[in-house]
Amino acid sequence: MGKRVVITGVPGVGKTTVIDGAREKLKEENIDYTSINFGTCMFEVACEQGKVKSRDEMRKLEQAEQKELQKTAAQLIAKIKENVIVDTHCTVSTPGGYLPGLPSWVLEELKPDIIILVETDEDQILKRRMSDTSRERDMEGYLSIKEHQEYNRAMAAAYSMLTGSTVRIIKNQDFLLERSVADMLDILR
Amino acid sequence: MGKRVVITGVPGVGKTTVIDGAREKLKEENIDYTSINFGTCMFEVACEQGKVKSRDEMRKLEQAEQKELQKTAAQLIAKIKENVIVDTHCTVSTPGGYLPGLPSWVLEELKPDIIILVETDEDQILKRRMSDTSRERDMEGYLSIKEHQEYNRAMAAAYSMLTGSTVRIIKNQDFLLERSVADMLDILR
Amino acid sequence: MGKRVVITGVPGVGKTTVIDGAREKLKEENIDYTSINFGTCMFEVACEQGKVKSRDEMRKLEQAEQKELQKTAAQLIAKIKENVIVDTHCTVSTPGGYLPGLPSWVLEELKPDIIILVETDEDQILKRRMSDTSRERDMEGYLSIKEHQEYNRAMAAAYSMLTGSTVRIIKNQDFLLERSVADMLDILR
Repeated sequence: MGKRVVITGVPGVGKTTVIDGAREKLKEENIDYTSINFGTCMFEVACEQGKVKSRDEMRKLEQAEQKELQKTAAQLIAKIKENVIVDTHCTVSTPGGYLPGLPSWVLEELKPDIIILVETDEDQILKRRMSDTSRERDMEGYLSIKEHQEYNRAMAAAYSMLTGSTVRIIKNQDFLLERSVADMLDILR
Repeated sequence: MGKRVVITGVPGVGKTTVIDGAREKLKEENIDYTSINFGTCMFEVACEQGKVKSRDEMRKLEQAEQKELQKTAAQLIAKIKENVIVDTHCTVSTPGGYLPGLPSWVLEELKPDIIILVETDEDQILKRRMSDTSRERDMEGYLSIKEHQEYNRAMAAAYSMLTGSTVRIIKNQDFLLERSVADMLDILR
Repeated sequence: MGKRVVITGVPGVGKTTVIDGAREKLKEENIDYTSINFGTCMFEVACEQGKVKSRDEMRKLEQAEQKELQKTAAQLIAKIKENVIVDTHCTVSTPGGYLPGLPSWVLEELKPDIIILVETDEDQILKRRMSDTSRERDMEGYLSIKEHQEYNRAMAAAYSMLTGSTVRIIKNQDFLLERSVADMLDILR
C-alpha cells in the first residue's frame, strides 16, 4: 500500500508550485506519486453518473447528492494502491462560512496518512492574488487570509483526530521555494 | 426542509442583540425563523420527564442523564421543518475547563447547516460584562476571554468536520451593530 | 467510578513536576490517583503479547499493530474503577508532522472526563530543554514550540467534541509552581 498524502492551502499560497517541484525531484529518485485533484475527481464521477455536464452545475446539486459524490470520489481514491497526492482544500471560504473540504464521511473513506498544510505570509498571498489576473477571485484582506489560515490548522487537527493521520505545516516563503520543496520531499520520500 | 443555524458567542458578546436585530429585519422580508435556546429546551424536556423542577437542579443531574437530555433536545429541534436558530454555547467555561456545547452525540442528531460564531474585541466584552449588573458573572480577564474566543474557533472546526456544516465568524463591534446584523441577514436569508 | 483525567504538555513544560506536586498534596487529603503513562502501558501490552522486547522496537511495528496496541491499552485503563491520571501527549511532533496522541479509536475506549493541557512560555521551555542534558532532544526553536502548543489546543478541542470531556489549560510558569499545582488540585479533588 502506498502513501496517501492530502495537500491543502488557501488560494495563492503556491500549492501547485510546491507539488510540481517535489514531484519533479521525486521522479529523478524513481519515486512515483499519482496526483489527484479532489474536486476534479468528484466532477468526473458526477459526469459519469450523468448528473452534470459542466463544473458550474456541480454547485447547484443538492446537499445529499454532493455528499454522495464526495463519498464515491473518496472511495475511488482509497482504492489506488500506489502513492497518491490528493490536492484539495482544508476549508473553502464561502458566503455561508468556512466549508470543510474533508468532512467526516470523506475522511472515513479516504483515510489519509498525512495531511499537509502549505502556508505562507498573508502579505505574500495578497500580492500573489493581486498579480494573478487569470482567475477571478473575491478579494480578501490581510486579516481575513490570516483568519482562514489559522482556522485551517484547527480543522486539520480535527481531521487528524478522526483518522490518526499526521499534520505537517510547510511554509512556502517567497524566494524560498527550494526550502519548501525540500520539506515536501522529506514527507513524500 | 428549513435552514438549521446554530449561533454561539461568549457571554457579553451581544449575541441576543444580533439575533433580535436580524429576525426583525427578516420579518419585514417575510422570512421566518423559530429561535430556540438549547439550554431552555433541555430544561423543558427534563421538566416533562419529571427529572427536575428548577434550573438549578439541572446541574446536579448525573452525566449520563444530562447526555440523554441533550440528545432528546437535539432530536426535538431536528424535527422542526421550518427555519430555526439554535441559541447555545460553543463551549462553556467551567471550573473543570471548557465544556463542549455541542458534543458529538448532539451534533449527530442536530445536523446543523451553519454554525455562527459571534465575536468581538475582548476589551468590549469586558466593558459590557462590567456594566451588566443584572447577571452575576465570574469576572474573567482580557487574556482569558481571548483564550476562550480562540478556543471556540477550534471547537467550531471540530463540529464542522463531523457534520459538514459551515462555520461563519461574525464580528459584533461596538457602534457597528448594523454591520453584524447585515452579515447575519446574508446568512439567514 | 473515579475521575479519568488525561494530562498532556509539550516536552519541557514541566508536566511531571505538576503531577507529582499535586499527587503529594492529594495524599495528605486522602485522595488517591493512579498515575499511568500511556506509552508505557502500550509497551507493556506489546511485551505481554510477545510483539516487542524493547521500546525501540515499538516504533518499528506496523501501523495496524500500533493501532491495536493503542486500543488495548485504552481498554485496560478504562477498566480502572479508581481515579486515574493518564500521562500522554496531545500530539507528538514527528518528521511526518504532528501525530495525534489520542486518535478517535483511543478516545472511544478511554472516554476521559477531563483533558489537561499544561502550557508555559515558549522561552521557558527552550531554557528547560537546553539545560536538560539527560535527554536527547531535537532542538526546536521558539516559533516551532509556539506552533506546537497552539496546535495542541486545537487538537484538544477535537478530542473534547468527540468525548464531551472538558479541556483545562494550566499555565506552569517558572517560580509559580505552587500556582499550577493548586490549579491541578482544584481539578483532581
